[in-house]
Amino acid sequence: MNIGKLELRDREESFINLNPLQTGGKTTADARKAIISYIDGYSICDWCKGALHITTEPDIAGFLGEVSDFLGMDSALPTNGCREAKFGVMHAISTGGSILCDGNMHYSSEVSAERAGLKIYKVPNNGEPEFKINPLDYAEGFENIKKETGKYPELALLTHVDGEYGNIVDAKEVGKICNDYSVPFLLNTAYSSGRMKIDGKKIGADFIACSGHKSWAAGGGNIGILAIKDGWQEKVFKPGTNWKSKPIEILGCSSRGSSLLALMASFPYVKERVEKWDDEVKKAQYLVNELEKIDIKQLGEKPKNHDLIKLDTPVYDNIAKTHKKKGYFLYYELKDKGIIGMKPGRTRKFKISTYGLSWEQVAYVAECFLEIGGG
Amino acid sequence: MNIGKLELRDREESFINLNPLQTGGKTTADARKAIISYIDGYSICDWCKGALHITTEPDIAGFLGEVSDFLGMDSALPTNGCREAKFGVMHAISTGGSILCDGNMHYSSEVSAERAGLKIYKVPNNGEPEFKINPLDYAEGFENIKKETGKYPELALLTHVDGEYGNIVDAKEVGKICNDYSVPFLLNTAYSSGRMKIDGKKIGADFIACSGHKSWAAGGGNIGILAIKDGWQEKVFKPGTNWKSKPIEILGCSSRGSSLLALMASFPYVKERVEKWDDEVKKAQYLVNELEKIDIKQLGEKPKNHDLIKLDTPVYDNIAKTHKKKGYFLYYELKDKGIIGMKPGRTRKFKISTYGLSWEQVAYVAECFLEIGGG
Repeated sequence: MNIGKLELRDREESFINLNPLQTGGKTTADARKAIISYIDGYSICDWCKGALHITTEPDIAGFLGEVSDFLGMDSALPTNGCREAKFGVMHAISTGGSILCDGNMHYSSEVSAERAGLKIYKVPNNGEPEFKINPLDYAEGFENIKKETGKYPELALLTHVDGEYGNIVDAKEVGKICNDYSVPFLLNTAYSSGRMKIDGKKIGADFIACSGHKSWAAGGGNIGILAIKDGWQEKVFKPGTNWKSKPIEILGCSSRGSSLLALMASFPYVKERVEKWDDEVKKAQYLVNELEKIDIKQLGEKPKNHDLIKLDTPVYDNIAKTHKKKGYFLYYELKDKGIIGMKPGRTRKFKISTYGLSWEQVAYVAECFLEIGGG
Repeated sequence: MNIGKLELRDREESFINLNPLQTGGKTTADARKAIISYIDGYSICDWCKGALHITTEPDIAGFLGEVSDFLGMDSALPTNGCREAKFGVMHAISTGGSILCDGNMHYSSEVSAERAGLKIYKVPNNGEPEFKINPLDYAEGFENIKKETGKYPELALLTHVDGEYGNIVDAKEVGKICNDYSVPFLLNTAYSSGRMKIDGKKIGADFIACSGHKSWAAGGGNIGILAIKDGWQEKVFKPGTNWKSKPIEILGCSSRGSSLLALMASFPYVKERVEKWDDEVKKAQYLVNELEKIDIKQLGEKPKNHDLIKLDTPVYDNIAKTHKKKGYFLYYELKDKGIIGMKPGRTRKFKISTYGLSWEQVAYVAECFLEIGGG
């Protein structure tokens, strides 16, 4: 079926989708209704009060207050996405100094820092098989930067949960070190907030960047959140000189319609679902446990504390060597069984996510992987 | 009816909407289908090839080539919106010098330039009642900046059609002057491309910024286009040092789902509708002609060359003085007649747009305004 020349997409309706990019961004029914209702351009501006974040019909201002509380922060603005939130902070703070980031950071953090003119230093992970970031290494990183450049960095960034291994770093430990060194602390929660509870105050974060499409069930419009601690408003939420209601780091109004409405419509469900995070972790642990019965090894920290699972799978790689479909066999066999979300052709190392699956679905996924592996 | 706590929006279905922000961004049926189909987070990444702009399923790469041709430019990238396209250019080019802009520019241009660290100079309009920008004033502006700062500006920006009066400036004349002075030329087409034909080559534009939600029928996701001339790729579409497929001015991938799909789905209709631009102008001229039969005066250039119409309406202001609903009477009387899109309470000066209305609807709108004015 076609939309003009475009293929209609048919994933969530017909398959169990394991794509870690997509499992936390599936829309709720209410988000779908909101998107369809506010589908036209600038629909969100019907009752404009001069800027998006102060609009009260729909109650964006109230929503931003709630979100800020939800994250344990003091104020929040909508952004086009998590990367734009990160860039906004970096751009506001950068005077061309340096930034210390974790070695597992998302590419968009690195690209944002480069765009903001910051010199990038990294806290390395501890390598195969766990690839863990040690929070204490931030202190060493700060000292090294001081030695090399004469100054501590202008900003520290931590990827709370990385998108490669699904490792959770103890953000509170990093926050403590940042606070000790008086280095502003930006926490990237693309894979954590919206899935699990985040308390920015307890963590000691100055800034929290969130991804609406990755973890807040806000769907495919472009939407994120930047929440900050009191004291940073003047620098990071600074308005234009001649446009006092327009924060320059979001170019005045970041969303023009359905994207923000979707985030708002899903928010009540997000508040509920973070309460069930422990069960999500149990599902991931169960699946890993099952898969490791055959020649499959989970990479990243053990036991798993997150639904994003990186696997090393010699079992499928060996089958691919003699299979007539070569490396593609795994993709097609899974698809035949109603499972999708992995890159076609990949058999040795890949990532999956169990987020939002029912226990029955997780058990079925385990069964299928084992069966294909001949276990 | 509610979506959770959110009110369902009901505008295009039940009213003639005259809001100039919204008339060019109404979704086509195909865009709606695309949005619904790609509604979930990162849905556009199903067949990721490493970056959004090189993806071929759906054929984003092909689409960007077509859009670039359509605008008479050499290459194009999707952005979160027109303002983000403008900021991308400004940020890539700025070394802290100056920019010359038209005095009718949108606030987002000014905020973008400020964010990019550019000192802003303006070409003034010629004041009441036409508020026109004279292209030749760009030469004078360049010379003044040179006198004051010792250097010509790093960039010139022209708002092709401004959002206040709907005046069209002869962009080719500005382009000629910019080229003579070797000042890079950024054309903001938020209210022109997608409505009328644009030929960047003929205009002499180095950069063209487009608004998907304002003029390309792409709806309420956040989406724009930045098209550039050959020679600027290295500076403006520069990739990250460690991420060779990720352009840093769009932070790698600017759209995560339905927004870009909506733009793509509406594009065949946009290509058709720009052919009918003359008729859109005639409708606006007809309406102005009718309204000026009573105590209403069109502001901005005469005759009108665009659907965005700014009106000075003493007739309604006088009625408001003694009406029991005061300034709100106009809003409610129009709403009773099935017409919406103006700020409640405003009776003296306001903006409307006839874009996309049928001739019957335009005639009806004229009739209603005259009737309310007692004409």
